[in-house]
Amino acid sequence: MSSVDVARKAAAKEAIRYVKDGFVVGVGTGSTTMIFLRELHRLISNGHVRDVLLVPTSTETEVEIINLGLAHLLRYPWQVSHIDLAVDGADEVDRSKNLIKGGGAALTREKIVDYWARLFVVIVDESKVFDKIPASHPIPIEVIPFAWPIVKARLEEFGGIVNLRFGSGKRGPIVTDNGNYILDYVPKTEIVPDETEGLIKRVPGVVEVGLFSGKKVSKVIIGRSNGSIITMG
Amino acid sequence: MSSVDVARKAAAKEAIRYVKDGFVVGVGTGSTTMIFLRELHRLISNGHVRDVLLVPTSTETEVEIINLGLAHLLRYPWQVSHIDLAVDGADEVDRSKNLIKGGGAALTREKIVDYWARLFVVIVDESKVFDKIPASHPIPIEVIPFAWPIVKARLEEFGGIVNLRFGSGKRGPIVTDNGNYILDYVPKTEIVPDETEGLIKRVPGVVEVGLFSGKKVSKVIIGRSNGSIITMG
Repeated sequence: MSSVDVARKAAAKEAIRYVKDGFVVGVGTGSTTMIFLRELHRLISNGHVRDVLLVPTSTETEVEIINLGLAHLLRYPWQVSHIDLAVDGADEVDRSKNLIKGGGAALTREKIVDYWARLFVVIVDESKVFDKIPASHPIPIEVIPFAWPIVKARLEEFGGIVNLRFGSGKRGPIVTDNGNYILDYVPKTEIVPDETEGLIKRVPGVVEVGLFSGKKVSKVIIGRSNGSIITMG
Repeated sequence: MSSVDVARKAAAKEAIRYVKDGFVVGVGTGSTTMIFLRELHRLISNGHVRDVLLVPTSTETEVEIINLGLAHLLRYPWQVSHIDLAVDGADEVDRSKNLIKGGGAALTREKIVDYWARLFVVIVDESKVFDKIPASHPIPIEVIPFAWPIVKARLEEFGGIVNLRFGSGKRGPIVTDNGNYILDYVPKTEIVPDETEGLIKRVPGVVEVGLFSGKKVSKVIIGRSNGSIITMG
């Protein structure tokens, strides 16, 4: 196992300790969360965790829940009254628990589920922690396709570089689980994450911003390459 | 012609005066704007207005532009560098030019186009003007279908009544031009439109709010049943 895998697994295993019998669990998106999900699957299978329900934050997570044979535990927001715990990864985290998310284009459903959860626990390996964000990732922004050139122009007025995201597996821009596009935004100057989140979200045509306010994050569990963990919050 | 039609026509005709040759015009949605569009069509046909391009704010407007034989003038945001003028209706207007829009479920594309325009002119008949909004209409809110029960619960926490919008022509909730749902929200207490617009937009799962800040509105033209007009702003 690579050192980053050791770190991710350490964080994922620690997050499992927050899962209680009978919990409705929001399941995040991305490689670290997939480790958490597979670990949770193991504990459900051997009877150590009982009566949990799983609300997915993306089609990736939904497909993985089905592939693990857990489709009977899959639930959507309109099938549950609340979410006890959401566990999700992040592309970057700062010392105030502010996050950049959306490298996997799942930011909108992630924020819907994560912000709704009573407890929102973030799991990352230590390479994701920075003094200032954004550090090495752009800020992903989900936009109504009709509006993408307008939102791009508006963000460029704020200052910085904006790219319409392309991927692989289909030609043209990637399309999100909600049928929208992603703009990747690199601001020209330092930002105040919570303010920038609100500023960008108010732009007409913006569906959601991949900045998550630290105030909404209960805990950040940081896995280290030696297998230990640090918890913030 | 009914007195309300006289009033709408007076406002629409006045708005035509803002259209200059060579303009890119954002065309709003709804019955009053349709009167404006047909009047504009008449002036284009008889050569009194030349070289305009039309950016629609909804599929209603798009279809009407095509049906009028003006498809060659139809443009989308990625086909133009700017919008000179947007002309749109409203469900309610207050004395500070704040608007409620979205009775026709077109609020998101309307706000994208209207806020982007260099000049944003609103045309209403006098029955739409109130001291305080919302007066007799709920606030329409476009939401990601995945999130509707969560956003509904959140708005109910703010206080008030929230209904998922149904219509006719299809069973189940109406689906917007962007593939989303509409929640109609009646706040329990008086609101500050500009603040409430920002507060609701920040809720994860909210795509856009049918409150338009008066600061973004250049002019409101109010048509009266005697055929005269009043202009605010």
